[in-house]
Amino acid sequence: MAETFRLSTRRRSELVEITRQVQEIVSRTGLTDGVIVVYVPHTTAGVCINENADPDVRSDVTRFLERLIPQDAGFDHVEENSDSHIKAILTGSSVTALVEEGRLLLGRWQGIYFAEYDGPRTREVWTKNIGSRR
Amino acid sequence: MAETFRLSTRRRSELVEITRQVQEIVSRTGLTDGVIVVYVPHTTAGVCINENADPDVRSDVTRFLERLIPQDAGFDHVEENSDSHIKAILTGSSVTALVEEGRLLLGRWQGIYFAEYDGPRTREVWTKNIGSRR
Amino acid sequence: MAETFRLSTRRRSELVEITRQVQEIVSRTGLTDGVIVVYVPHTTAGVCINENADPDVRSDVTRFLERLIPQDAGFDHVEENSDSHIKAILTGSSVTALVEEGRLLLGRWQGIYFAEYDGPRTREVWTKNIGSRR
Repeated sequence: MAETFRLSTRRRSELVEITRQVQEIVSRTGLTDGVIVVYVPHTTAGVCINENADPDVRSDVTRFLERLIPQDAGFDHVEENSDSHIKAILTGSSVTALVEEGRLLLGRWQGIYFAEYDGPRTREVWTKNIGSRR
Repeated sequence: MAETFRLSTRRRSELVEITRQVQEIVSRTGLTDGVIVVYVPHTTAGVCINENADPDVRSDVTRFLERLIPQDAGFDHVEENSDSHIKAILTGSSVTALVEEGRLLLGRWQGIYFAEYDGPRTREVWTKNIGSRR
Repeated sequence: MAETFRLSTRRRSELVEITRQVQEIVSRTGLTDGVIVVYVPHTTAGVCINENADPDVRSDVTRFLERLIPQDAGFDHVEENSDSHIKAILTGSSVTALVEEGRLLLGRWQGIYFAEYDGPRTREVWTKNIGSRR
């Protein structure tokens, strides 16, 4: 069955690291070798893998996307979050992370990030294991 | 084996919902628990998961992308669809959707969309099941 | 276990075709039916599937992205590659390619591309098979 966890975002646009929560699911469910699909069931948020060192990267990313795809760009949708839908589509609704010997196999500088584009909100992440368990 | 279905698009840029066709494949093939990879074998179209309620969202998305990545941006490629290739790359060539108890496990407002960026055309979608069957 | 290969990029932004290397892994590991996840462990590069015919498409793509997301856009991150991180996020860190009868199942014009956004560098690609082996 899919595993689920929640998180709270604090800004309209924000990258929130969820690497620890995903690793905990890998450990708890006993996935030893395979992949874990990390899935966002929302339409104004996404998920991505990116740098987990300098926090300036995260603010540079969200600030630039706010400028590139502004909230007030003459959209029709009455909820005034068409920009959030576009950012979510371009970011993607899932990432597939590799798992070996019970650990996420990430690059040296990589972390998994929930990409909030219409916060602050309480959000969910769903995951699904594919592979062999201990 | 991969499953296939066709669809016809009617505009140059268009998001066409394919949730029903994907669910039919899940049902027909008996996938009960796992994921289904929904794959687009074209280079000027993509696939994404987004809001299936207000149709204004879909037109806002495609109209904004036409403005952000215009067809006439001084490209070299003679087929005059380099913008379509760029939109396809940014949207992505596949989505991975979760399946449980024989049903697509989508968020409340989510649908699966074929993203046409160089239509109108007849297009194909390929899918692959990963998981256990009844 | 994950399979790995290296490649050298020659420009700051460049799409390098890696279809042959991925097919070689499929052949060598004996994956006959399933999917192969092609994963980039870097945070300033991505991976995508796109046209493998006219090379003008590849230069159109990277040149347009350089203009859309310029290196010098007033970013804070001191390494001066926030633009590369943004391009990597929008491109994505993995692709899922279908495999049947031991062959990559790609569309007629499709190839798999390593998307370099902060080169030239020596880079790695990791892959993971999901499916049945001969």
